[in-house]
Amino acid sequence: MSKTNTGRFFEDYRLGEMIDHAVPRTVSGGERALNHMLYPARHALYSSDAFAQGCGLSASPLDDLIVFHIVFGKSVPDISLNAIANLGYADCRWLAPVWPGDTLRSTSEVIGLKQNSNGKSGVVYVRTTGTNQHGQEVLQFVRWVMVRRGDPDAPAPETVIPELKDSVAASDLVVPKGLDFTDYDFTLAGEPHRLRDYTVGEVVDHVDGVTVEEAEHMLATRLWQNTAKVHFDATAREDGKRLIYGGHVISLARALTFNGLANAQMLVAINGGAHANPCFAGDTVRAWSEVLDTAPLDAPGVGAIRLRLVATTGGEVGALKGDDGKYLPHVLLDLDYWALMPT
Amino acid sequence: MSKTNTGRFFEDYRLGEMIDHAVPRTVSGGERALNHMLYPARHALYSSDAFAQGCGLSASPLDDLIVFHIVFGKSVPDISLNAIANLGYADCRWLAPVWPGDTLRSTSEVIGLKQNSNGKSGVVYVRTTGTNQHGQEVLQFVRWVMVRRGDPDAPAPETVIPELKDSVAASDLVVPKGLDFTDYDFTLAGEPHRLRDYTVGEVVDHVDGVTVEEAEHMLATRLWQNTAKVHFDATAREDGKRLIYGGHVISLARALTFNGLANAQMLVAINGGAHANPCFAGDTVRAWSEVLDTAPLDAPGVGAIRLRLVATTGGEVGALKGDDGKYLPHVLLDLDYWALMPT
Amino acid sequence: MSKTNTGRFFEDYRLGEMIDHAVPRTVSGGERALNHMLYPARHALYSSDAFAQGCGLSASPLDDLIVFHIVFGKSVPDISLNAIANLGYADCRWLAPVWPGDTLRSTSEVIGLKQNSNGKSGVVYVRTTGTNQHGQEVLQFVRWVMVRRGDPDAPAPETVIPELKDSVAASDLVVPKGLDFTDYDFTLAGEPHRLRDYTVGEVVDHVDGVTVEEAEHMLATRLWQNTAKVHFDATAREDGKRLIYGGHVISLARALTFNGLANAQMLVAINGGAHANPCFAGDTVRAWSEVLDTAPLDAPGVGAIRLRLVATTGGEVGALKGDDGKYLPHVLLDLDYWALMPT
Repeated sequence: MSKTNTGRFFEDYRLGEMIDHAVPRTVSGGERALNHMLYPARHALYSSDAFAQGCGLSASPLDDLIVFHIVFGKSVPDISLNAIANLGYADCRWLAPVWPGDTLRSTSEVIGLKQNSNGKSGVVYVRTTGTNQHGQEVLQFVRWVMVRRGDPDAPAPETVIPELKDSVAASDLVVPKGLDFTDYDFTLAGEPHRLRDYTVGEVVDHVDGVTVEEAEHMLATRLWQNTAKVHFDATAREDGKRLIYGGHVISLARALTFNGLANAQMLVAINGGAHANPCFAGDTVRAWSEVLDTAPLDAPGVGAIRLRLVATTGGEVGALKGDDGKYLPHVLLDLDYWALMPT
Repeated sequence: MSKTNTGRFFEDYRLGEMIDHAVPRTVSGGERALNHMLYPARHALYSSDAFAQGCGLSASPLDDLIVFHIVFGKSVPDISLNAIANLGYADCRWLAPVWPGDTLRSTSEVIGLKQNSNGKSGVVYVRTTGTNQHGQEVLQFVRWVMVRRGDPDAPAPETVIPELKDSVAASDLVVPKGLDFTDYDFTLAGEPHRLRDYTVGEVVDHVDGVTVEEAEHMLATRLWQNTAKVHFDATAREDGKRLIYGGHVISLARALTFNGLANAQMLVAINGGAHANPCFAGDTVRAWSEVLDTAPLDAPGVGAIRLRLVATTGGEVGALKGDDGKYLPHVLLDLDYWALMPT
Repeated sequence: MSKTNTGRFFEDYRLGEMIDHAVPRTVSGGERALNHMLYPARHALYSSDAFAQGCGLSASPLDDLIVFHIVFGKSVPDISLNAIANLGYADCRWLAPVWPGDTLRSTSEVIGLKQNSNGKSGVVYVRTTGTNQHGQEVLQFVRWVMVRRGDPDAPAPETVIPELKDSVAASDLVVPKGLDFTDYDFTLAGEPHRLRDYTVGEVVDHVDGVTVEEAEHMLATRLWQNTAKVHFDATAREDGKRLIYGGHVISLARALTFNGLANAQMLVAINGGAHANPCFAGDTVRAWSEVLDTAPLDAPGVGAIRLRLVATTGGEVGALKGDDGKYLPHVLLDLDYWALMPT
């Protein structure tokens, strides 16, 4: 029997099954520093303990996307090693901050299965949960991937497609305990704009561009212990190109939003997202945002802003899809998320 | 109104104005490890808690150039985003060590203004100060940049050019509290040479060369949260080249000086400096130093050495300027600084 | 007199001489995070404090190869700066875990000398020891290098060749104090295979490949404060190529073994090793292992597995040498080591 992981096939998943993902991870100030090194990240709450304390937290938590990448990365060997395509995510919510010293684990529940009509593959829906060393849930998201069948004779499972909301309701957003933007320091945060200064439909061009090198995306993807072959092995794809991990593009684009959205401090939910086109080394990544919604929240001085974040390799700001309804070739990412902002 | 920062223009500065720069930063052991990864840094006092404790400090402080880069980086969006040229620095002094866990902030005072005769730009002089979370000043320096005018009809300000010393007097150098080189361990430090072994006019060839990659300088410059476009965006310059942040060359060259100046432990002042020629990926950076002065100091066993640090991409050691008085094309950096050395 | 280190020549070594290597180093969570970033490292005991505590340790120690690289790197300026070749290592044992906050030092004893018959060089054997800030030994290894003679007239030393064992006996392996695999969590570790599931002679293909970039190996080698010129200076070799530090290949290959040897948690000894062929940027590194031996140990639930780790740039799994007895051109590394595994 081979001792190496060849990944699961479609027929290996059972509805309701819980999968414990391997390799828990303790994070430290090292991961925080690396996040600054890998992405042009400048949101003050993730940069300064003093600033975070001024916002009612005990210290600066780890960037929300660090948590996302680590929890996601752990699920790759069990969920997407044989994936033909990552089809989407939904209902992603951050549930508690992660601090230096915390240890993260990740588990997934199979919540839906649908064999494709060609019988050669199927769609697996999982709800992945990240927990800390106290068993407290820190992140939860649903994703669905198309997975190959290994055994052509295995019976097809009953089709179950989970009901997924189009977006997380503002009332379901979890505000970190103690968060208080009453004494928020707009000068140190970098911009004066508060929630009421943004109007639905407004588009913000984040101006800057970052050219990506092979070494950079591989360093990042490894840091999150995501070991999917296509990101690291130049011989894995026919065109000899390494595919940049989609999450790397998310972190790059989110960091670029500082210029215009410096006060969209904490991510609290991702409503959905699409990696519209692959990103490769040599691409210069740019970003623009569209304000989709705003909502009041219970925490003092804290409101929510819903944003579409679009990463591109150029093209016109605001242009997303062509007449055929397909993403324009220069669009890399179309992400719909909620962030917390002072009111 | 655009929400993104387009930077200040010459007419936006007022003499005596204080500018609080955004995005305070908490540093940790992560930044120290990264400094070792990015530069061939081997000075023992910044590498080992035990060695620093043997020199009277409570632990190993963060490398002085980490502090410089972070404080400088914060000032970029307010001072040099529309800069045509970084003209110089002067009177740079480190005032207190920075420890893991400290949070750094940065402010600048406008101390001089001089509109150029063409009316299209002007020179802005600022004194930038870095402070820690206790409000204690850790670094101060003056720099002056040429900035574009945005509004051609704005009135020219009164010309005020600050008086700047050619160099920091030895009596103005601040020695970290408690520093004591009486029991200095020359073996662990790496070289036997003490202050009296260096003579004014002596030139030291630091021998080693380091070839720079695009990924490396971008990782470093991002780590210091310096987001100036030309360093990251291959499409920003007509020649398609990314300009390497001048501070990256300073850190590289300073690290190379270990070989011959292993006991020039702490930087205490920069008297002045010029980025003689731009540095690009693919360059192999070398360094040589000239001893400019030495001075006794009050702390036990501690003296000061004034050094010219020249970074090059080759050429003859000791060769700096041509017959025309201009820097030779292979000279990248000409930096004049004071460091502390056992006597 | 030149102040820079030109390295020692063969005639500068004396049998029995103790050399204290410079630049002690304090490690932190930063180094741990960087190890994850530089290598696809996933062994759970080095990733999670909680997992390590479940194995009887107080926290997750630093990866054994971090310790090896740091202790080795310190010896380079005194031992191998003028080396013509690194000939081999033997009798390498880890003696105690290294924790964040520890400060590492390195010393070498000259245990053998043999002038070559051509009189132009000689072989120097040293036993290098790494110690922590408490003076406790954490690592010890023997290596031998061929070093140039500087002075043709210096007398040849008496030839002394140390007796070196072919391998470390299982009874000489040092198990970290408190290590207990009785409640080992195979799910979190990533694989179900325990010591008895491996049979001597079994070959494991670790499947994945990692393409190496110049920036990556230079970042790594600098992090370990190994400043040997050939790794950093593109002008140092006639072919303009930078040679990748052999230890970088060891760490890459060891990390790749996770897939198939996830439970070979801690390295306790290296019996010997050869860098069969040089590695350069652009190479895609793969790995396979052969089980050489297994042995019971005294600690609860802990056994030892002896493995041959072969790093390659392709070729057939299991193929090592040609008919001429020489390593095949695609073989980079042939390493023989002991690791601890749950029984």
